[in-house]
Amino acid sequence: MKIVLAPDSFKESMSAAEAVAAMERGVRASFSAFCAYAPCADGPEPEIVGIPMADGGEGFTEVVARALDAELRTVTVPDTLGRDVEAVFAYDADERIAVLECAQAVGLENVEADDRDILASSTVGVGRLVAAALDEGAQRLVIGLGGSATNDAGAGMLTALGVRLLDSDENDVDPLPARFSDIARIDTSGLDERLSHVSVEVASDVTNPLLGERGASAVFGPQKGASPEQVQELDEALAHFVDVAGHSGEGSPADTPGAGAAGGLGYALLAFCGAELRPGVDIVVELTGLESAVAAADLVITGEGSIDAQTLSGKTPAGVAAVAAKAGVPCIALAGRVGEGAEELYDHGFTAILPIIPAAMSLPEALASGADNLTAATEATVRLFAAAGFAATERVES
Amino acid sequence: MKIVLAPDSFKESMSAAEAVAAMERGVRASFSAFCAYAPCADGPEPEIVGIPMADGGEGFTEVVARALDAELRTVTVPDTLGRDVEAVFAYDADERIAVLECAQAVGLENVEADDRDILASSTVGVGRLVAAALDEGAQRLVIGLGGSATNDAGAGMLTALGVRLLDSDENDVDPLPARFSDIARIDTSGLDERLSHVSVEVASDVTNPLLGERGASAVFGPQKGASPEQVQELDEALAHFVDVAGHSGEGSPADTPGAGAAGGLGYALLAFCGAELRPGVDIVVELTGLESAVAAADLVITGEGSIDAQTLSGKTPAGVAAVAAKAGVPCIALAGRVGEGAEELYDHGFTAILPIIPAAMSLPEALASGADNLTAATEATVRLFAAAGFAATERVES
Repeated sequence: MKIVLAPDSFKESMSAAEAVAAMERGVRASFSAFCAYAPCADGPEPEIVGIPMADGGEGFTEVVARALDAELRTVTVPDTLGRDVEAVFAYDADERIAVLECAQAVGLENVEADDRDILASSTVGVGRLVAAALDEGAQRLVIGLGGSATNDAGAGMLTALGVRLLDSDENDVDPLPARFSDIARIDTSGLDERLSHVSVEVASDVTNPLLGERGASAVFGPQKGASPEQVQELDEALAHFVDVAGHSGEGSPADTPGAGAAGGLGYALLAFCGAELRPGVDIVVELTGLESAVAAADLVITGEGSIDAQTLSGKTPAGVAAVAAKAGVPCIALAGRVGEGAEELYDHGFTAILPIIPAAMSLPEALASGADNLTAATEATVRLFAAAGFAATERVES
Repeated sequence: MKIVLAPDSFKESMSAAEAVAAMERGVRASFSAFCAYAPCADGPEPEIVGIPMADGGEGFTEVVARALDAELRTVTVPDTLGRDVEAVFAYDADERIAVLECAQAVGLENVEADDRDILASSTVGVGRLVAAALDEGAQRLVIGLGGSATNDAGAGMLTALGVRLLDSDENDVDPLPARFSDIARIDTSGLDERLSHVSVEVASDVTNPLLGERGASAVFGPQKGASPEQVQELDEALAHFVDVAGHSGEGSPADTPGAGAAGGLGYALLAFCGAELRPGVDIVVELTGLESAVAAADLVITGEGSIDAQTLSGKTPAGVAAVAAKAGVPCIALAGRVGEGAEELYDHGFTAILPIIPAAMSLPEALASGADNLTAATEATVRLFAAAGFAATERVES
């Protein structure tokens, strides 16, 4: 009996690694059930393979670093508003893979609500982080988008990597949306030459384009503090940028699904850095070697703080369930919240979706008791699985 | 594939019959999982056998009436304080079985907190209910204890059935604990003669004796409104009653576990009516024919509003799990609250215990959404069971 434990983090309750540990305690607690019920009663204990997972969001770097056994490097870079911030990225020197998250540099959580000024925010820090990874010798960059406080179409990152934004007098323009109307020409001749020799993968579960009603400014601007007027101004600023870059019209990279991720960082990476956009969970699946672990498993247990119809939009449990389904292995999802439309997931590789909260309680209580709840739910799940398997085996053999 | 659904009620949320219906919807929703995973893909749909359960508590009459297809009879009897109340009992005219609950006559819920007067409360109404059942022609009386507002050692019931409580002048004494000190003699010569020809079974999950620290007055008096002084007075009153009845000393029926149930009604039934005390769930198991249904089942699902270490003290899920364990059939319990010590149940026939609340929420929200939550949890449970069985079958066959 081999069980793969592959949860994401349970937000505000457990990291993915902590969730794996909680699940593992549950599996071990269920061993008596194996003894009582499973064909392997006299055999070895079930083999447990714990693989902390992530999608493009929170925990991405940590999870991949752990999977690759990569080192964490810290760089001081400018945050959204140009203040120094310590940003971490993972580097696997053997494979020459660097993994970074834009939120490490320009994360929304690093800026107090009162300090937010989206028109004066830039992704220069992300560019510095990319440069640091290239300095290490990275041949493959994996960049997690999500959680940014910016809406600059990646202009800041581009200038940090050598692109120049010029006004009609050929003077440099600051890479801030508030200044974009001054840009008359974008000079890419100085773009870091190393970028053309490395592979750049962008992990994102956002499929929005850069501009318009479904664009970065309209959809994500408000949660970063933009007023309705500012959303309008930002969208026009980004449209001007795209226009000057020669990316308007049919087939524009600005229209690519995901171009609108991280305030348009998706667009800049796609259009200037040769990046490929992939669902974050697919990248994590690849780098963690989940497929080969699952191929030999009898059961996969995944999970996340919240699971609902949105989970199908590239969230970790959906990615794990897809891998399990491909291998024909049952996949159980355990969640702190099983929300609206979760039953849709049953058509997408999920065998069963079970909540872990043991009783009516407040959200803070649920978050505080998350690990114990996950352990108990895992124990029950594995007991049920083992008993059902044993019963079926007996049926077949008799 | 045959699945037995045998839950108790989910208190303040669903009756046992409603819980069965909610579970049944969940099993039906899981059919697509059977199609995808189960060996019976092209076979008939799983057979569902719904058996609403109860122990000695709330819902006992309703559940047994349903199982026996018995008629419900209504009688007007005095409540705790002597006011008229409509009490219902179930009567199976073919089998001549009457099923009644003392709470129908003297239920705590029928008396407003302000009106409670435990020293002036009596079980006369229960005696009238018993007499009504005897009038119908019952040969077997099944009496559910629990939920009473009384603490009269069953004296009221006894007088309603012909027993006389006499003072030293041979005058009748009211069957109220406040008057017990006047009792000098108990005359049982007038006790309804029919009682000696019928079998009387008392369903109770309480094991307390009548008197003392663990007795009816001390343990259950306070929740019926008794002050510490009144608890003392009640215990002394009951001790006097036992003394006059000639039941003091070694081997007294007052010491029998369960004598303290329903304010001492257990004692009166045992000592004067030839009653046998049985765990309520065992009686319900018998009358519902649960054993034969389970013998042919692949899976049993039980449940109750709350499941914890106390469940082992004769609560419905424990009784159902014992039946399942005896038959070697996996038994899953679903609960609105999985509380302290629930893991102890794993040593007593429970295969898995799973909570049904899908997210952090208040108790009123949880109670209001109970049926939907139970349906979703049942669907997940059955999907998991079917998938595990299918996987095991494939393993064996390959």
